[in-house]
Amino acid sequence: MSQKTRLCSLGLDFGTNSVRALIVDVASGEEISTAVANYPSGEAGILLDPKDPELARQNPADYVESMAAVIKKALRLAREADQSFRPDEIIGVGVDSTGSTPLPVDKNGLPLAFHDEFKENLNAQAWLWKDHTAFAEAQEITELAAKEHPEYLAKCGGVYSSEWFFSKILHCRRVDPKVFAAAWSWVELADFIPALITGTLQPEKMKRSRCAAGHKAMFNEDWGGLPARDFLSKLDPALAELRDRLYDKTYTSDQPAGYLTASWAKALGLPPGIPVAVGAFDAHLGAIGAGVAPGKLVKIIGTSTCDITVWPNSQPLPDIPGLCGIVDGSVLPGYFGLEAGQSAVGDIFNWFVNYLQPEGPKKGSHEELTQRASRLLPGESGLLALDWNNGNRTVLVDQRLTGLLVGQTLHTRPEEIYLALIEGTAFGALTIIKRFDEYGVKIKEVINCGGIAEKNPLVMQIYADVFGLEMKIARSSQTCALGSAMAGAVAAGKKAGGYENFKQAQKAMCGLKPISFKPRKDYHQVYAELYPLYRELHDAFGTRSWSGNLYHLMKDLLAIRDRQLEKARQLEAGNRKNVKRKN
Amino acid sequence: MSQKTRLCSLGLDFGTNSVRALIVDVASGEEISTAVANYPSGEAGILLDPKDPELARQNPADYVESMAAVIKKALRLAREADQSFRPDEIIGVGVDSTGSTPLPVDKNGLPLAFHDEFKENLNAQAWLWKDHTAFAEAQEITELAAKEHPEYLAKCGGVYSSEWFFSKILHCRRVDPKVFAAAWSWVELADFIPALITGTLQPEKMKRSRCAAGHKAMFNEDWGGLPARDFLSKLDPALAELRDRLYDKTYTSDQPAGYLTASWAKALGLPPGIPVAVGAFDAHLGAIGAGVAPGKLVKIIGTSTCDITVWPNSQPLPDIPGLCGIVDGSVLPGYFGLEAGQSAVGDIFNWFVNYLQPEGPKKGSHEELTQRASRLLPGESGLLALDWNNGNRTVLVDQRLTGLLVGQTLHTRPEEIYLALIEGTAFGALTIIKRFDEYGVKIKEVINCGGIAEKNPLVMQIYADVFGLEMKIARSSQTCALGSAMAGAVAAGKKAGGYENFKQAQKAMCGLKPISFKPRKDYHQVYAELYPLYRELHDAFGTRSWSGNLYHLMKDLLAIRDRQLEKARQLEAGNRKNVKRKN
Repeated sequence: MSQKTRLCSLGLDFGTNSVRALIVDVASGEEISTAVANYPSGEAGILLDPKDPELARQNPADYVESMAAVIKKALRLAREADQSFRPDEIIGVGVDSTGSTPLPVDKNGLPLAFHDEFKENLNAQAWLWKDHTAFAEAQEITELAAKEHPEYLAKCGGVYSSEWFFSKILHCRRVDPKVFAAAWSWVELADFIPALITGTLQPEKMKRSRCAAGHKAMFNEDWGGLPARDFLSKLDPALAELRDRLYDKTYTSDQPAGYLTASWAKALGLPPGIPVAVGAFDAHLGAIGAGVAPGKLVKIIGTSTCDITVWPNSQPLPDIPGLCGIVDGSVLPGYFGLEAGQSAVGDIFNWFVNYLQPEGPKKGSHEELTQRASRLLPGESGLLALDWNNGNRTVLVDQRLTGLLVGQTLHTRPEEIYLALIEGTAFGALTIIKRFDEYGVKIKEVINCGGIAEKNPLVMQIYADVFGLEMKIARSSQTCALGSAMAGAVAAGKKAGGYENFKQAQKAMCGLKPISFKPRKDYHQVYAELYPLYRELHDAFGTRSWSGNLYHLMKDLLAIRDRQLEKARQLEAGNRKNVKRKN
Repeated sequence: MSQKTRLCSLGLDFGTNSVRALIVDVASGEEISTAVANYPSGEAGILLDPKDPELARQNPADYVESMAAVIKKALRLAREADQSFRPDEIIGVGVDSTGSTPLPVDKNGLPLAFHDEFKENLNAQAWLWKDHTAFAEAQEITELAAKEHPEYLAKCGGVYSSEWFFSKILHCRRVDPKVFAAAWSWVELADFIPALITGTLQPEKMKRSRCAAGHKAMFNEDWGGLPARDFLSKLDPALAELRDRLYDKTYTSDQPAGYLTASWAKALGLPPGIPVAVGAFDAHLGAIGAGVAPGKLVKIIGTSTCDITVWPNSQPLPDIPGLCGIVDGSVLPGYFGLEAGQSAVGDIFNWFVNYLQPEGPKKGSHEELTQRASRLLPGESGLLALDWNNGNRTVLVDQRLTGLLVGQTLHTRPEEIYLALIEGTAFGALTIIKRFDEYGVKIKEVINCGGIAEKNPLVMQIYADVFGLEMKIARSSQTCALGSAMAGAVAAGKKAGGYENFKQAQKAMCGLKPISFKPRKDYHQVYAELYPLYRELHDAFGTRSWSGNLYHLMKDLLAIRDRQLEKARQLEAGNRKNVKRKN
C-alpha cells in the first residue's frame, strides 16, 4: 500500500462574494489547483435594498451555479498543472460557508427563492451573515434570554446578534409573514450545499452542522438542543411551531452528510458516491486547516479577525465572558470550539488609507506608511489607539463603541497614526488572549492566516512584540478551503485513503510557512508598559464598572449622530422636494 | 478747532519674525499706511541652537535696524497713498512687542549683545518669548512660590512659565554666569524700544511696562512690586542682588515713556519731541485696538489664541484659577487686565492639513475641507476632539497634555475630523468663557480678531453656534499695531490733538466689521448637548479630581515618548558612528 496512487480531496469555501474550490493531495496537503467563481447577482454577489442599508441577501441560485463553475474550473486547472490528474482521484468533498446565512426552504428542502412566487422577494433569499435588519429582534431575544435562560447567552458572549439564525427568522415573521408561512424550515448555507449534492435535502435526512447550530442557533445538548419551545413561543408562537420542523440532532464535520448523487457527480464532473462532509463555518474549518489544537490559537486576520482555539471536552471549562461562542464539536470533534474575534482589523488600516488618504493616494499608501512606520520605536509617537472603529466583538461584545486616538501633538505624522492603529489592534488581540488565559485556556502558540498575516510582515512583527509570543503563519494561503478538503478526507475515512480523524489529517496535510516573527525583547518591554494604558482606556470607555463613568460617552455620541444623520436625510429630502417644486 | 488739519499716530508692533508699522488717522482710526520689515538674523529672525531645540533668541540689533526700515517704508507709503501727508502730522508713537522677551543690558541700558565681547554669545541676545530653555528653573520658581508665596501664582494661573522673565534670568545665571554678571539689568523688549528712542535707557529713567511686569515678572503693588528679595534669594542670592537694579515702579500705556530725541527723530524721519507711550505686550494693546471693555472679551485667534477682557479695579475680583494673568492696568488703566488663551487653534487645523495632508495637498486643503465641513450638521459625524495638541494654557495650565479624538468609525471622513477639530477648539474657548463667568466676570460680547477671525467664516460660525453668542469681528486687521497707535494718541493727550484716555480713543478709532456671525439656534442646541461630553473628557484627562483616574494617561504616554525619542536619537547617533567607523 506504500506506493499507491495519488488521492485528492476537494474543499469548497463559500465566501461573501465568491466561492473557492481547492483540490489537495490528501497525503501531503499539497495544493493541486484552486479556482474562484464570483456570485453573479446583485452587487458583488449581494442583493441590496436602497431603502435599507442594513439589508444584505444572496440569491441561492448563485451558490449552485457558481459551485458548478468553480469545480469545473478547478478540475481543468488541476489537469493543466498535472496531465496525470484524474477526477476520480478525489475521495471526498468538504464544504464551509459564511454564517449565519440561513435560507427559508420548502418541504423538499429547496429554497423558496427557487419558486416563481418568491423569486423576486428579498425575504425569500439567503439572509447573508452581514444582514442587520433584525437588530430589534436580536435585542428582544437577548433580553428574554437574559431573564429566562441566561445559560443560552453564556455560551455566545452574552448578546444574541442580529446576524444570527433566530433573529433573522423572527424578523422575517414580523415583516413578511407570507414568506415565513411558506417556509417549511430554514437551513444554513453550510447545511444546504452538502444536503443538495448528496440528495439529503429533506429535513428528516439532512445532517445539520454542529458548528452552525451551536454558534448561531443556541443549540446545546446540555439543554436538549435548540432553545426551549416555551422560550421561542414567548418571542412568537409561530417560532415555537417552526422549532418542530428544524432539527434536534447536529453533526461534526468529520462525518459524511451523505454521498454525492450520480446526477450531481455528473453535473460537477466528480466521481459519484464519494462522501461529502457535514458543513461548517469558514473560520472553524479554517482553524483546522491552520493546525488548531489545544493551546494553539488560530488567528484569521483580514478585514476583521476570527480567533479560534479548542479545549478538550473531557476537561472542565467555565463560561468565558465575552467570547462569541463556546460549542462542543464546532471545530474538532471531542473538543469545545472557542471563538473570539475583532470587528475590524484590516478594515481600520484600510479606513485610514482609503477614507483619510493621508498625504494623498501615493505617499499615503499601505506600502509607504508601513515602510515608514517600521522605522519607529514603540511608544516613540506618544500615541495610543482603541481599535473600535467597528465596535468590539470580543471581549466587550458591543457594537455601539467607536475609535479613539490619544496623544496627538502638532507634529504627529501619518505613519505614527498608522502604527498606533496597528498597535491598537494588537492590544485588542492581546486582550482576547488574556481573557482565554484568565479562564484557564492557556495560549502557548499563535498561528496566523488570512490576508494580513500573509501580506503585512509589520503587523505580524508588532503582534509578536505586543504578545511576547512568536507569530507563526499557516503554510496554506487558503486555510478555510484546505480545512474543508480535510473534512472531505476525514469523511472519506482511512479505508478510502483518507484519515480516521482530523488530528491525523492535520499531521499530514497542515504546516507552517518557514518564516515566523519572534518578539523583540526591548520592544516587548515598552509594549508591556503601553498595554496597561490601553487597558485603562478600554475599561473606561467600554465597561460600566469603571469608576469614572465614561461608558456612556461613545454611546451618547452615536445617539446624537444617528439623530443628526436622520435630520440630514430629511433636510436633503426636503431640498430635493423644494428643487422639484421650483422646476 | 473743528476744521483742523489731519493728525496721525504711529503704532509699532514687534512680532516674532518681523516688525509692523501702522500710521492711523487719530480722528477716525483710518489706516493711512502699514508696512512690515522682517528681522534679518537667524531663521526668520530667530537665532537657533542646533543642539537645543528649546532655544530661541533674537539679535537686538535686528529690532533697531528693522524699526528704522519699517517706519521709513510706512512714511513713504503714506505719502504714496496721499500726497498731502506730512510726517509732522504724527503726534505720538506707541509700541507693543512679544513677551516675555527680556534682554540683558549694561549700566547704560544698552544690550550686552552690542558689546564686541558678547556679540556672538546667544545668552547675551534677546530671549524670545518662545525660548523654553528655562523649564527647570520655571519648575523651581513654581515650587518655591507654591510653598512660600502662593499669592504670586494665584495671579498667573498657578504655574510660573519657562517663557517668563525670572525663569530666563535664573537660567542665564546657571548656564552663563559671565553674561549674568555683566548684565547690569534686564529689560523687556516692550520697555527697551520706547526707552531707546526717547533717551531714557538708563535704569533710573526707564519707565517699565505694567503689562510686562505684572504678567511675566510677578510684579504687584499688593506685595510691594517685584517678588520679595528673600524669595529671590532662595532661588539664587545673585537674583536678589539683581532685584535692586530692576525696578520698583511700573506704568500703564496711556503714559509717555518719554519724548522722541532729536537724533532718533532724524534717523526715523519723525518729528522730534513727540511722546512715545510706555510699551505693552501685543495682545494687550491688541485688545484695546479691538475695543475691549468690561463684559467684552477680545479673542485674538491665530495659530494660538489670546483671550483678553478687563474688570474695574474698583470692584472686587477673586483670583480666577487657570488664567494666565490678572494684572491691574495691564490693558486699560483703572481696570484689571485678565488674560487667558489656548495653546493651539489655527496650529491644530494646520497640523491636520500640513502634517496629515488628508487626501493629498489638493483635495485636503483648508478651503476644500472647510467647504465640505460646512455642509455637516453638528454631531453628525459622531466625533469629539480635545484641543490639546499643544497642551492646555487655560484653564488647566498644563503643557503635558495631548490631543484626543473619539468617535471614529470605518466611514469617518477628513472633513468630519476637520470639523471636530474646529469644534474642539470652540469647546476649549467656551470653557474659558465659562471660567470667567463662574468667577463673576460675565462675558456679554465677543470681539474676534487675528488671522482665523479674518479668514475663516466657518470657524467664526461654529464659535457662535457653540457659545450661543454673536461673533463680532474687529474692524482693523492690525489690532495690535492699532492699539499701539492709540497708546501714542493717548500719550500725546487731548491738547496735542490726541485723547485723554483709552476710552475716548476707542470711541473714535475702533470699530467692528459689518459682518458678524449669529448663533444658529438648532446648532446651538446640539452643541449644548455635546459640550458636557467634551467637558467630561476634559476633566477626565486633564484634572486630578476625576474619579476614573485617567489624569496620568497622557503624561505617561509623553514620558514613554520622551524616553523612546532619546533612544531613537542614540540609535541614530550610533548608526552614524558605525557608518563613520566603516569608512
